[in-house]
Order: sequence, then structure tokens, then C-alpha cells
Amino acid sequence: MDAKPDLHRNTRVVIVGAGFGGLAAAQALANAPVEITVIDRRNYHLFQPLLYQVATAGLSPADIAWPIRGILRDQKNVSVQLGRVTGVDTVRREVLVSGRRIPYDYLILATGARHAYFDHPEWEGTAPGLKKIADATHIRERILMAFEKAEAEDCDSDERVRLQTFVVVGGGPTGVEMAGAIAELAKTALASDFRVIDPSTTRIVLVEAGPRLLPSFPESLSAVAKRSLERLGVEVCLGAPVTLCDDAGVELAGERIGARTVIWAAGVMASPAAKWLGADRDRAGRIKVDADFSVPGRPEIFAVGDTALAADADGRPLPGVAPVAKQAGRYVAAVIRSRIEGRPTPAPFHYRDFGNLATIGRKAAVADFGRIRVSGFLAWVLWSVAHVYFLIGLRNRFVVALTWLWNYVTFQRGARLITGGDSEEASSPAEPETKVRRVG
Amino acid sequence: MDAKPDLHRNTRVVIVGAGFGGLAAAQALANAPVEITVIDRRNYHLFQPLLYQVATAGLSPADIAWPIRGILRDQKNVSVQLGRVTGVDTVRREVLVSGRRIPYDYLILATGARHAYFDHPEWEGTAPGLKKIADATHIRERILMAFEKAEAEDCDSDERVRLQTFVVVGGGPTGVEMAGAIAELAKTALASDFRVIDPSTTRIVLVEAGPRLLPSFPESLSAVAKRSLERLGVEVCLGAPVTLCDDAGVELAGERIGARTVIWAAGVMASPAAKWLGADRDRAGRIKVDADFSVPGRPEIFAVGDTALAADADGRPLPGVAPVAKQAGRYVAAVIRSRIEGRPTPAPFHYRDFGNLATIGRKAAVADFGRIRVSGFLAWVLWSVAHVYFLIGLRNRFVVALTWLWNYVTFQRGARLITGGDSEEASSPAEPETKVRRVG
Repeated sequence: MDAKPDLHRNTRVVIVGAGFGGLAAAQALANAPVEITVIDRRNYHLFQPLLYQVATAGLSPADIAWPIRGILRDQKNVSVQLGRVTGVDTVRREVLVSGRRIPYDYLILATGARHAYFDHPEWEGTAPGLKKIADATHIRERILMAFEKAEAEDCDSDERVRLQTFVVVGGGPTGVEMAGAIAELAKTALASDFRVIDPSTTRIVLVEAGPRLLPSFPESLSAVAKRSLERLGVEVCLGAPVTLCDDAGVELAGERIGARTVIWAAGVMASPAAKWLGADRDRAGRIKVDADFSVPGRPEIFAVGDTALAADADGRPLPGVAPVAKQAGRYVAAVIRSRIEGRPTPAPFHYRDFGNLATIGRKAAVADFGRIRVSGFLAWVLWSVAHVYFLIGLRNRFVVALTWLWNYVTFQRGARLITGGDSEEASSPAEPETKVRRVG
Repeated sequence: MDAKPDLHRNTRVVIVGAGFGGLAAAQALANAPVEITVIDRRNYHLFQPLLYQVATAGLSPADIAWPIRGILRDQKNVSVQLGRVTGVDTVRREVLVSGRRIPYDYLILATGARHAYFDHPEWEGTAPGLKKIADATHIRERILMAFEKAEAEDCDSDERVRLQTFVVVGGGPTGVEMAGAIAELAKTALASDFRVIDPSTTRIVLVEAGPRLLPSFPESLSAVAKRSLERLGVEVCLGAPVTLCDDAGVELAGERIGARTVIWAAGVMASPAAKWLGADRDRAGRIKVDADFSVPGRPEIFAVGDTALAADADGRPLPGVAPVAKQAGRYVAAVIRSRIEGRPTPAPFHYRDFGNLATIGRKAAVADFGRIRVSGFLAWVLWSVAHVYFLIGLRNRFVVALTWLWNYVTFQRGARLITGGDSEEASSPAEPETKVRRVG
């Protein structure tokens, strides 16, 4: 087969994944003479940076997700297909989707990453990670259920301590934000909800293998983040790689922390896109792409976002954040247009870094804008405004802003729902019927 | 054992179920010298009348549900236990909950009802009903997935018709509201989301075994409801009992309607509370209670809401609606207080009927206030205001009002999320890899 375009039809661009990168590419091709097919396993685009707030009962899934079809409905050169890609036939230039084959002239792989346990896949069942909505509602359920089980009258005191201990593994933005949010959930929103236990005695431990939190931020802000977390009552353990992880807790270089809830925010592994192509990849599974994000030897295939290992024009590796994915998606769209239209290739990709933000609880955050570094309440306001601004859809912006204001003023969390089936787990049904006490 | 209160402790009131009835009883006992335990299988109180809006992607679960602990947090004489009640030991006066025993002096059973298939339990897998949040998100997924499957390129045209046909069984308020909401979802919110199919050609059939819709309303309003639905494009089949229900559709007295999505809104069956007591019950499993809602022969046990078959002071059977449950819950609280305080029993229960409302799509509704009957847009406004007013929590009222306004103005539905795992179902993976067409 040949790459020469058939003049009787438009060029076919297939985009796999409707995350930040894939969506940006599709939208940047709005007026191009192409037929775009966007394929995703899920019917929604997810604003992942706020997923931890769903996991900690601050927001509802629909506040941070938007149907892909809704986003692209007015772009007439796009069709959306729901399906799981299982491979790419690079010879026939077809994507294999749930038993079908979808042909492409250009292929953009923007399939993202999942949390990874590297040498310990068996930890996944014990320590859930946070990448999709079902992960977030599962973690929300785990956290809320831990308090419910601790409140059950027949719970013994050792078990109560384990149930009221939460370990977050990984000191990047997700881990920091998650630990801060659990601390606030326990110490404010749930504070007077129980009669037997006292949620304010909840222990939250943030574990990081490296020497500091937020390694992608300047050191001064790492220190601020640590202090802010400690002020919220979070214990921060640095230089502490997890050596064991099971249902009863974690082990850090000999020290055991008993905990019934362990949350994994320690590593990501790219989607299997590199395997579909047999392409060169790094340990995290990312495809080593050329300067224009094309796959070496496959100029018609591109990878962007967490699927790609790419470097900036000045050689620095690009971080795995949303703005990089969006800018790369738009850049690839420009490359494809230039090829179709026979114009010169655009200038080399240069990442415009507008700054780096992470939030810690309800009024602290750290912001790194290169020369300017901000922390505390001002950074938190910046963080809130930026995140509301980047949400898709006016309604979502409005509801999230309102919900945050509400949570902020009342210390409440509206989304404290345990929705996964019935709660027979609340106490073990095989428990002998002794120890009946009445707690008023 | 004896009913005489031990003077060294407060009277123990156990309430099973935190729906409208149970919650009203607990709140009405706020200042009584009692120790209340509220037991529920779920951690949230659900505003069931709006559940169909979650099922049709209009609202998020957290908009119509509120954690029970949050509602009762400031009422110091209440403790909340999450657990499933499996029986009642009426001799020792203990409730059996997930292997534990919780003693009571007074017991209020407010365990509600589930949808029922009566002689056809095998239909449950095919035709889901709507009683809890997981039901609503499941139905939402089924509805949205039907459109996704129809859009898949390898779907044949007969299957496409079946996928775009929705049958709602049951012409009561839930069925009427559900059919109207599906029609609007398909014909407005989804109208331009697809490229292969045209959602506006979706067929929605509302099937009712009896001679008219909304049998609890005056006949004139039943006729209005039918006309309003038909204006939305819903086919209404009256006097049409379902004789068969399977994966490919339903059969109505010989006529077959091919449909991949059938929703059950035809009958309810009370919780097994009557069985726990061995009490006298009707066909729908409701306990035949005395005038004060106590169980005959068990003056210390009460049943309210959908668990009870009760009559008004003038002998009319009480309908299974939220206001009845709330008023009965408060009445039982008053009865218990009068007994504890040795005061005379309150005047016989009289249901204060403030009217009956049902909505049909985005601007029609019917309202029956006894002598005054309203329909059309005014009824729809009344319906909206009443439902926002009765929601628990200022935040929920605000977000729901805002979301409705938003949906109304934009014709959009924000909560169109398919969140249950990945969408491998989008097309059958065993499909032979032929028929590859490209649809732009």
C-alpha cells in the first residue's frame, strides 16, 4: 500500500484517545480538508487534574467530564467511535477497534497513561490508583467505607486505628493533592458525622521515595508544600520507598504502617500504544518520538501526551502535564495540515510553559511561573481560577466554581455517596453475635 | 422480656430506613428523651422523585442524594449505622443487622419498596427498574450505549432500529416522566451528536396495562399527559399488558415491539419487612398496619411509607407517595412521644394532601390540587419549584435549579456519562472483520 492520497476522497486522520492531546489535535483540524475519526474507550473527555476531588467527595463525576460527542458535535469533519483499540496494522494502515478496522492516512496516538506498579502488579488490588472516573468513585467509596466500618459498634480498637489510617503513596501533584483533600474531608466535612469515632484523629501519611515532594517544582515550593500538608495534619515521609503493600497496610524500609486504605499515586505507565507499533519505548512505555512527534520511520503516525517521550526544541524532556499534551496535539495538527497542503513544516515545537500549580487543601497552593513563585492563599486562588477556566463547558465551570465556594464556606462535601451496590460489607456478616453494646 | 422502660436509660428507638418516612420520624424525635439508631443499607438519603433525571442524564447522583450522617449530624440523640437488616427478633426486641443485634424499645420500619416483576422475576435482567442510584446510572448507561452501538459502523439496519427503540413499561408517574425524558434526550440533547444515526428518529413506546396513564390523577389530566407525551413523539399504548419481555423487545397481546432497551416502571414490591415480623401483608408485601401505623399485636413496632398498607381516617387507602411517608413518620414519632410521656394518643392520622404532580418533558406537567387542576407550562413551573424546595440542602437546591435552567436554555444534558468500566461492548468483538466502511 502507498501513502499517496487518493484524490477522490479527503485525507483520513484517525485520533485514538480524546484526552487533552487528542481533543486539541481534532479541534485544530476543524477547518482542514480531512475526515477525522476520534476513537475512545469511553464516551467522555475527563479533566483529570480534578479527579482527586471526585475521589474525596468534593465534586461529582459529571462536573469534570464532558461527552466527547458533545464537545465535537459542531465540527462536521469529525466522527466519534466508542471502542477499544487493540492494535495497529501499519502495513495496511488500519486501526483495529473492537473487531473492526478503521483505515487512516495519518494516525495520532493520544492514549494517555495508567497508574503503574512496575515490579509489583499484585499491589493494584490493595492500593487503587486514580486515572478514570470509576477509579475515583471506587476510592471515594473505600475512604467513606473505612469510616463507616470504624463506626460499627463491634469494631475493635486496633482495627479502628487501621481503618482511620490512610496512606497515600507518591509525592507528586496527585499524591500531594489527594493527601491534603483526605485530611480536610476527615477533619472538617466529616468532623461531626459520627458518634463512636472521632474523624479528627484520622492519620494521613504521605509517602515519597525521593528526597522531596513535588520533584518537578523548585525546592523552595516543595518545602512549602510539606509545611502546608503538615499544618493540615498530614505526616510526610520522604526518602521512604514502599517495600510491601497488603490489605493491612504498607512497609517502608522496615517500618510498618497499619492502614486499611492505601492509595497509589506513585507511577504511571503509558498505554500499550508502543507495543501496537513495535516502536522504541522507555521504561514507562512511552514512545520515543521525533521532534515533530512522529514515530521514527513512520512519518504518518504521531504520538502526543503521556503516550510520547519527547523533548523540547532545546533538548529538555517534556513533562507529562495537560498543557504539553494540548500544545503537542495542536502542533501535530499543524504538521499534518502543512503536509496535506504542501506547505513547509512548521517551526520546531517549543513548549510554552505557563506555570505549574499544585493545591494543598482548602486554602494553600504552590505556583511556579519560572521566575515568579507564589504560595499560600494567593496561589490557591490562582489554582482555582485556572482550573475553572480550563474546564470544558460553561455549565461545568459554573457548577464547579459554585461547589467550591459552597465547600469552602460550609466545610461540607456534597458528594459523600457510597453508590457501589449495597453495603453488606459494613461489618463482617460471619461475626459471632456477641459484644452487643448500645452506643447512643 | 417486658416493655417497661428501665429508668436508668433512655428509651431506645430503632428506625430502619432513612427514606422520607424514616428520616421524618427521626427528625420529629429530635427533642424527645430517646436514643435513636437509624439503620440503612446505604449511606445516603435519596430524593427518589427525581431519580429518573439521573437515569436520563439530566442530573448527577450527588444532586439528589445527601449523606444520612450529614442530615442528622446536629441531632445528638441519633446514631447512624450502615448495614443490612436481615430480621427482627420480636421476642428479645432486637434488630438483626449484618450479624449484629441492636435492641429496641420502639421499632419503626420504613424500608420502602423495590420495583417488582411479580410473576416474571426473569424479566429483571432484561428490563431494569429504577429505585436506587445504581439503577439510575445503569439505565443511563443502557440508554447512551444503545445510541453508541447504533452509531457503530458495522451495525446493520434492523439492529439499528431495535437499538433506537425504547420501551417503558408502566404508565404511572415514573413511567410517564421517564418516557418524556428519553424523548427529550434523544430529540434535543443528542440531536446533533451522531454522524451515522439520526437520534430524532428514535422510537419511544410507553406501555400501560390499564385504560389510562397516571391512574391516581383525574381522568382529564391523564388525557393531557397522553397528549403531551405524543407531542414529544412518544407512542402511548394503553390497555396493553406485557406478555413477554426479552433481550430483543416486548410482546403486547400478540404484537411484538423490537427494542434493545426496556425500562420497567410497572410495579413495586415492599421490602421484606413483613416477613421479618411474620405480619399480615397484601400482595405487594405491605404490612397491614393499624390506624396508628403500629403492627397488629405489636404496639411497639410501626411501619410507614411504602412498607405499610394504611388507610386515612376516612377509610381511603393512602397512596405510596413521599408526603404520605413523611406525615406518617412524624405521626408515629408523636405516638411514641405520647406513650413515653404518658400523654393521650394524638388525634387519628389524617393525610394532608397538598396535590399531585407529574412532569412530561421540558415544559409540560399536570398538577392535581383537588378542586384545582393545572396543566402545561404553569404546572411545569410549579413542579420545578416544588421539587427544588423539597430537596435536602441548600447546595442541592441551588445546583439542581441551575442545572435545570441550563438544560432548559441549552437543550443540553451534562451528565451523559457511561462510567461503568470500559466500553468493550461497543461492538461485538467476535464480529468477523468484514464490512469495513468509512463514514465521514
